[in-house]
Amino acid sequence: MADFFRDKEAKLRPHTKTHKCPEIAHRQLRAGAKGITCAKLGEAEVMAGNGIRDILIANEVVGRMKIERLLKLEAICDVTVAIDDASNAQMISEMASADGRRVDVVLEVDVGMGRCGVRPSEALSFARKVRGMGGLAIKGIMGYEGHAVMIRDFEERRGECTRALKLLLDAKSAIEGEGIRVEVVSAGGTGTYNITGSYPGVTEVQAGSYATMDARYKGIVPDFDCAIGILTSVISRPMPERAVVDAGMKSATMEFGLPIVKGMAGVELMKLNEEHGIIKLGEGAKLSPGDKIELTPTHGCTTMNLHDRVYAIRDGRVESVWEIAARGKST
Amino acid sequence: MADFFRDKEAKLRPHTKTHKCPEIAHRQLRAGAKGITCAKLGEAEVMAGNGIRDILIANEVVGRMKIERLLKLEAICDVTVAIDDASNAQMISEMASADGRRVDVVLEVDVGMGRCGVRPSEALSFARKVRGMGGLAIKGIMGYEGHAVMIRDFEERRGECTRALKLLLDAKSAIEGEGIRVEVVSAGGTGTYNITGSYPGVTEVQAGSYATMDARYKGIVPDFDCAIGILTSVISRPMPERAVVDAGMKSATMEFGLPIVKGMAGVELMKLNEEHGIIKLGEGAKLSPGDKIELTPTHGCTTMNLHDRVYAIRDGRVESVWEIAARGKST
Repeated sequence: MADFFRDKEAKLRPHTKTHKCPEIAHRQLRAGAKGITCAKLGEAEVMAGNGIRDILIANEVVGRMKIERLLKLEAICDVTVAIDDASNAQMISEMASADGRRVDVVLEVDVGMGRCGVRPSEALSFARKVRGMGGLAIKGIMGYEGHAVMIRDFEERRGECTRALKLLLDAKSAIEGEGIRVEVVSAGGTGTYNITGSYPGVTEVQAGSYATMDARYKGIVPDFDCAIGILTSVISRPMPERAVVDAGMKSATMEFGLPIVKGMAGVELMKLNEEHGIIKLGEGAKLSPGDKIELTPTHGCTTMNLHDRVYAIRDGRVESVWEIAARGKST
Repeated sequence: MADFFRDKEAKLRPHTKTHKCPEIAHRQLRAGAKGITCAKLGEAEVMAGNGIRDILIANEVVGRMKIERLLKLEAICDVTVAIDDASNAQMISEMASADGRRVDVVLEVDVGMGRCGVRPSEALSFARKVRGMGGLAIKGIMGYEGHAVMIRDFEERRGECTRALKLLLDAKSAIEGEGIRVEVVSAGGTGTYNITGSYPGVTEVQAGSYATMDARYKGIVPDFDCAIGILTSVISRPMPERAVVDAGMKSATMEFGLPIVKGMAGVELMKLNEEHGIIKLGEGAKLSPGDKIELTPTHGCTTMNLHDRVYAIRDGRVESVWEIAARGKST
């Protein structure tokens, strides 16, 4: 991913919600990323506490308690936060001013995903409301084409993505037409990195999943390999055709389907219970209690969030153990 | 639950996989539980490290590394472990003997759930294999009627549960006919507590979910209220009919359906993304950024496992904060 961005106008700002792991974030920065993207304030606090200095919180931070935390974070690093509501912006403005601080913001625009963000047609009027607020600095705009990243057919994905980015860049033009500088145009995910990352005017791409990948994303973006697996033990082999492993829903998520057994012919995961996985064994497949099976998750981001640490393996040897320090920091 | 068991032959041994929280486990013990049930060795280690002294690990513990940990645990508390495989039993036997220890075991019998456990017809021959092994003490048998606990119709549930328990008690009789004492007959879940808890010969019931409950279980066992909720903040209100909250799949699991919005007319959770929940607002429903919504999980056990602590609230005030210390201890 870093290679792709080396000669692009847009820079990579990897989303750390995928791995929640400061060590991986530092490696992404050393490879050339300009900063990181965080989903939540709590995640950003952990990353800042681990020495990372350029952080975009790609969500709204609301309420007095969280804005207080945001201001504390702002005191130790360069943090930018998304806004899409004038009252929220006003509260950040007043609290930042009272604290003698200035908070960098990006205006979130809903480019078709239907989550947060003002409508593209309202971006200009929202910018007008915010521009005069003390204690705030408009850095730019943000829009996530999340409705496009998982489209299987690449040309269809490119079409949908391009439509979304046009809305974002049109909003930029409208705001700049008002004399407000839009330095940052932030967008993109792993599924659109090579579309959004080449789109004129986009300054940074928030791709995250590429760092770990998963079985589902691999089917959409074959450019990156799956880096994560769950090593699980057979704890029971009650029948010739059934084995039970000790990874269940608390070890691997399944909102996007069951994890996949890696590289074992005739060994198939049939079901995840809360604490167990049920394995079906084909003819000739041999497994005994104590044997290990590697599962490839179908959703890397939520699966990482179940674990406290990651064992970094190279050539079959554990080379390092990294804390998933921002695991569970969901607010 | 404690009240139910006060005059029963069977005693309550609550499953702590539900809450993973030593403080709740201690409260269950103070209310009359005879000990606790754990899903995994790691969970048992945390509970023992927090002063709990009578623990059943209701699963197989396999391989040298884990058995070493089991023996260390045995040194500080009364631990009983399930077995269903002669080689695994032999390994525990040899390692316990070498260490001068004796490990209490229950023979797991598959009473129809199709997970771990020997077939009922093989329970006697398995007991014969194990009886002579040094370093092991057969305490009894265990069988979980997991295929019955979620049957919606109570009479149907009772029928299925009773069939399963007959298999378990028949196995007990066969083993005792051989002169092997079966002191413990362990079974049951929250869905069958009042069937299994009254069944002659059952000595302990492993119900766990009752402690927290969830929206799904409440539909099956109305006897207990839901104790847990997820308090989430509205971070965006981009349209009159849409709000976005900061609880997503990393805050609430959804393998059994979306969480339910508690007590707010016209406010419905439509979707969970990874870091967000999408709320649909009906006519007249007012929500602004910063407002709080309480979600009732549909699966308490896996949702608790996403969080580091639980805020214990009485009459609207936080009375205590409890660490979910065994969260993530899935092996």
